Amino acid sequence: MPYSFFDIVEKCDNYPYSDSTYYPSSELNDNIPFLLDNDIKVGLLLPSIINALKEYNSLKKPNPFIIEDKFVKFASHLNTFELRTEIVKQLLDTWREEKVFPALSGWRDELYPIYGDSKNPTGVAFVMERCATPLFGVLTFGVHLNGYIRTERGQLKMWIAKRAKTKPTWPGWLDNIVAGGIPYTLSVTESVIKEAMEEASLSIEIAEKAVPVGAISYFITTQKGLQPEIQYVYDLEMPPDVEPKPFDGEVECFYLWDMDELIKHIKTDEFKPNCALVIIDFLIRHSIINPDNEPDYLNILNRIHRRLDFPTKTI
Amino acid sequence: MPYSFFDIVEKCDNYPYSDSTYYPSSELNDNIPFLLDNDIKVGLLLPSIINALKEYNSLKKPNPFIIEDKFVKFASHLNTFELRTEIVKQLLDTWREEKVFPALSGWRDELYPIYGDSKNPTGVAFVMERCATPLFGVLTFGVHLNGYIRTERGQLKMWIAKRAKTKPTWPGWLDNIVAGGIPYTLSVTESVIKEAMEEASLSIEIAEKAVPVGAISYFITTQKGLQPEIQYVYDLEMPPDVEPKPFDGEVECFYLWDMDELIKHIKTDEFKPNCALVIIDFLIRHSIINPDNEPDYLNILNRIHRRLDFPTKTI
Repeated sequence: MPYSFFDIVEKCDNYPYSDSTYYPSSELNDNIPFLLDNDIKVGLLLPSIINALKEYNSLKKPNPFIIEDKFVKFASHLNTFELRTEIVKQLLDTWREEKVFPALSGWRDELYPIYGDSKNPTGVAFVMERCATPLFGVLTFGVHLNGYIRTERGQLKMWIAKRAKTKPTWPGWLDNIVAGGIPYTLSVTESVIKEAMEEASLSIEIAEKAVPVGAISYFITTQKGLQPEIQYVYDLEMPPDVEPKPFDGEVECFYLWDMDELIKHIKTDEFKPNCALVIIDFLIRHSIINPDNEPDYLNILNRIHRRLDFPTKTI
Repeated sequence: MPYSFFDIVEKCDNYPYSDSTYYPSSELNDNIPFLLDNDIKVGLLLPSIINALKEYNSLKKPNPFIIEDKFVKFASHLNTFELRTEIVKQLLDTWREEKVFPALSGWRDELYPIYGDSKNPTGVAFVMERCATPLFGVLTFGVHLNGYIRTERGQLKMWIAKRAKTKPTWPGWLDNIVAGGIPYTLSVTESVIKEAMEEASLSIEIAEKAVPVGAISYFITTQKGLQPEIQYVYDLEMPPDVEPKPFDGEVECFYLWDMDELIKHIKTDEFKPNCALVIIDFLIRHSIINPDNEPDYLNILNRIHRRLDFPTKTI
């Protein structure tokens, strides 16, 4: 029994809504906001994290965090990018050494920006190791690319990647041909071009033809924690004679599927959840999912543009 | 000093957010939900409406509404499409006769569906005269069409309508070439085709080439009341030799503008607010507004897909 498109959307955007139309309240709601020293909310902390933070805090003078029943915030002396970044690094190094959280075993050595400090022209308040972001429930940013071709008869086909079985996250699941987080040091477009080379062996000349067409947002919870995410979406109409090829070992192989085949694999839940959402957005923009054939059209559009109440990346 | 795209979005999506990131609480928050007999929330009632409802309710036995401090709902005997529709009609006829609300002077004789009754296969709980919908803060549905051409050099131009000075609403403002509410009796696609003929003299053959590409949603408050709205969005690449022409007197004239000219008129706030949002969505989907040139890219995408916590149209 295949899933509906809306089922697939709900598998990705699975964090409860406060107004409970979609999900009843759950233990996932037992979190408190994580604030900057300027009181801007930048994350959400589950009880297990709060307990570990309390322990860390009690051993460190002056206390780096103010931990109350209703919130945790940076102490007022931690009021710059450098100071916040350093204390978070020390904290994570400690937790990693002591193996407090399994999520930290997937250390990437990639720094992700957390926004919310208007004193900094980029808005970045501090940066944090990528694999730690679900522990703090901070908003992260990525970019996904729909690589497609249009046949001579005008039929759409999409290139799809199968993730290597050795990947630490979502091994063997289906994926967009290019997708990745946006590290602190790169712009959105630079990230697309870099990932296009690393993941699909696409030349700069090809990758530069990718065009930005919007963004999706959702809030997924996994065993790792809380992941509010925004993915910039790019479309790339590929020349028919260019095939994506695995380059860095993260992709097992690529498929070129017509829309029927593509939809079949979405509805059998073979895609990494957020990649399915990127494709559903593509199918809506290309009229394949439309108001006449999809009863959940409006709900899907709403859910894949979820409002995430955190400061966002600007340029 | 022209407005930014985000300023223009905020002029349309101007109802406060409950989490107050965008707007502080205001008297607009002093409303209570309007519920069906099954407790599904279908609207929001401002204090002035509640007072008038109380007066009407006290004169009518059995009372059609249950009016509490925290909500107003249909009495349990009003549990079918016909019964709810009839009592709302009687109520509005009374208010119209007694000139209780100026909004009702713009009577249209068009019935709009209110969703939320799953006992009915269409989901429609009752229908209501179009001009009364802002009094009840019920969700309404429309369809807007971007009529554009691509020149031989690949340059995009868009057809724009100037609303007649005699129109009761937004006279003289700029508009999409085809736009309108979706009446109870028509499907989305049927509405597009009907409006394309009535507003722009487009033949069925041309109008049928319009393709659905998504929907925008926002919550606007005007002097008339509270208007949470969803607009299905269609794009129509027009043949270069076809010009839209006024047909029913609602349009003064049409313009064909390149993207620079179009953006100039958006930023000087000459467009009816929701039409500006439809075009901003077009500009995002066509990479003209993009992450590299628009600091508010993510905020704009979020605001034009606002979550409206009411049951929606399905098919």
